[in-house]
Amino acid sequence: MYQSELISKTRKYISQSEESLNAKILIKAGYVEQVMAGVYAYLPLGYRVLQNIESIVRQELNKISAQELLLPALQPKSYWEKTGRWDSLDVLYRFTSYYTSTELALGSTHEEIITPIAKNLIQSYQDLPLAAYQIQTKFRDEKRAKSGILRGREFIMKDLYSFHSSSEDLDTYYEIVTQAYLNIYKRLGIGDITLKTYASGGTFSKYSHEFQTISDIGEDTIFICEKCNIAINKEIIEEQKTCPECNNSDLTQRQSIEVGNIFKLQTKYSEAFDLEFTDENGINKPVIMGCYGIGISRLMGTLVEVFAENEAKMKWPVEVSPFNIHLIALNTDSVEVMQKAGELYDNLKENNQSVLFDNRNERPGIKFAEADLLGINKRVIISSKSISQNGVEINGNIVSFDQI
Amino acid sequence: MYQSELISKTRKYISQSEESLNAKILIKAGYVEQVMAGVYAYLPLGYRVLQNIESIVRQELNKISAQELLLPALQPKSYWEKTGRWDSLDVLYRFTSYYTSTELALGSTHEEIITPIAKNLIQSYQDLPLAAYQIQTKFRDEKRAKSGILRGREFIMKDLYSFHSSSEDLDTYYEIVTQAYLNIYKRLGIGDITLKTYASGGTFSKYSHEFQTISDIGEDTIFICEKCNIAINKEIIEEQKTCPECNNSDLTQRQSIEVGNIFKLQTKYSEAFDLEFTDENGINKPVIMGCYGIGISRLMGTLVEVFAENEAKMKWPVEVSPFNIHLIALNTDSVEVMQKAGELYDNLKENNQSVLFDNRNERPGIKFAEADLLGINKRVIISSKSISQNGVEINGNIVSFDQI
Repeated sequence: MYQSELISKTRKYISQSEESLNAKILIKAGYVEQVMAGVYAYLPLGYRVLQNIESIVRQELNKISAQELLLPALQPKSYWEKTGRWDSLDVLYRFTSYYTSTELALGSTHEEIITPIAKNLIQSYQDLPLAAYQIQTKFRDEKRAKSGILRGREFIMKDLYSFHSSSEDLDTYYEIVTQAYLNIYKRLGIGDITLKTYASGGTFSKYSHEFQTISDIGEDTIFICEKCNIAINKEIIEEQKTCPECNNSDLTQRQSIEVGNIFKLQTKYSEAFDLEFTDENGINKPVIMGCYGIGISRLMGTLVEVFAENEAKMKWPVEVSPFNIHLIALNTDSVEVMQKAGELYDNLKENNQSVLFDNRNERPGIKFAEADLLGINKRVIISSKSISQNGVEINGNIVSFDQI
Repeated sequence: MYQSELISKTRKYISQSEESLNAKILIKAGYVEQVMAGVYAYLPLGYRVLQNIESIVRQELNKISAQELLLPALQPKSYWEKTGRWDSLDVLYRFTSYYTSTELALGSTHEEIITPIAKNLIQSYQDLPLAAYQIQTKFRDEKRAKSGILRGREFIMKDLYSFHSSSEDLDTYYEIVTQAYLNIYKRLGIGDITLKTYASGGTFSKYSHEFQTISDIGEDTIFICEKCNIAINKEIIEEQKTCPECNNSDLTQRQSIEVGNIFKLQTKYSEAFDLEFTDENGINKPVIMGCYGIGISRLMGTLVEVFAENEAKMKWPVEVSPFNIHLIALNTDSVEVMQKAGELYDNLKENNQSVLFDNRNERPGIKFAEADLLGINKRVIISSKSISQNGVEINGNIVSFDQI
């Protein structure tokens, strides 16, 4: 794409109300716009990043035999009453249809929807295990929204639900999902700073787990055990004082951003909705469930917090960068440069590279400042000087045209 | 994918409350589930169809230089007050945040969101024209929802907005979008029964246009001019009695489903939000706008209404079929059949075909009845009989393995 045709623009000044680094950079770079506190629009470059994150998540979940579906945001009160969460889940947006007087919730999670649907998918042990996920918009009536796209009132989430005939089978799949999550974080470039973290398990399980990415701006506090390379969240550490895995008490405290959570629901929701299966002996039993979340838009914000050097300089990890290559032409009044640049642009596209081509007649200083803000992973500069050396400039070095 | 691993199942019996053919077939085939009246979940096969439709729409809009973005569903009252639609748009779900007391709407359309955002994208005539679209979930507080996924309270829509420096430029793009829409309907297999239809234009334009697909179950009534191959909606015909294009009064009345609409908004929204640009002479003028909608989930329902032979038999058009090929193995107790079928399945996948492989040990009658309901575009049968003739059966004919 020609940068001159991109509908978004970079901006020098933005509203003072934006406090977080991720929102500041993303708005300045033209990736997102704030519509109201906690609610953002994703402009073309931002939407490309979201789609790239979604694509990684999809690929890793398809590998573990999870099947993609799409559940609705509008949800009837009756389903939420069955689990008691109509009254207890304070972030649930609740409202009434003007025409039908039906009371509705806007989905902040989907256990109340997937569990009754699973009754049509599961009859016997032969239908199990079963795993289904969606990438979908969620809503939360947050008291305060001040962390940019890290904690939105409307946000994009991947939620996976698994169904099993035994706790052992759930345990096995839980470990498979754990590995898929670690693969996802690795591909996002945050594998080495994202830790599986012990968290409270609720009524049915001793622990659940979060995935926490170390970041000074994180809202969460974790305690890292260097021995096991795992972490423990604040709640657990206050109860136990040591690492649950190895009893090590030599733990390092850090701030972090929660980028995923996995939870053994056991029979909490299957009992509420009477979701049963018939086992090998013809006996009806409640289905065992697990749920697994990853905040897609939150991950995008996390990547900015982790990879931005400052408010003016970002670099996206290679797999999520909105374009593979930022091709920047200098000396754009030179016919030779623009011809060579045009040929290179066509060549790269033919080789399946996505390229943002800055063909604009602007000063180098403006081009580089904008490129710093956009943060496309690989920058290729073509100029009279580089052409005189038969190549382009990448990271300060001349690289020949056929080696880009 | 092995059909035995598909999480959805076909069903013989469904709730009597479903009146529409599209919902009946889609629920029986395991493509969708009803969550409440007018609100559906899309199971894996149904979601694949939706994604295929989305992909066609995306490709055709990217060709006409429209850029994809994503706007939020949560929308502040203040934006809707600026256009007066907070009070006048009866289908708008309205509610109040418990924590912040902010009054909110759930987006049923996005002029009120895109127009203020465009103020940051457009300053001068050099930023025009500009076209942006999204594929996103919309909400409508419908009085009655009885047409399955044709008219939902929650549905997926593609909405495109264009911005211009003159009415002439809008007129040009309006024709370009018209052609893109016709390409989309052609690829969906409904090109020959989908007609550009004259409709009322509102305050600023004489006409807008709808795209209407002829179907006896359609809620709309259109009048077709055989001379021009265009149609006129009921409202216009009651005013004019003749075809607006050629004054022909020999018109055929038909029922139809609205599968798209395009509308010259002119300055209605740009004036409400003070969206201006500076022209070549340095003079500020309101931006001229157009908007263009296609109901993605409605299109899926339309395809069922058009292509289903009856409640038990569907055939998806080639480009939207959830799989390219339904490979059905008979005589599954034969080692030879299962070996050949497995090899064929692998070969087809290597050749980038998506294949649903019915490897189940079921009677042929059950397999074919389910295949009829699923409606995958191309059916390939492999059996002892077909193998004895060195091939597979397609539409009753033996086709050799290398010619599938």
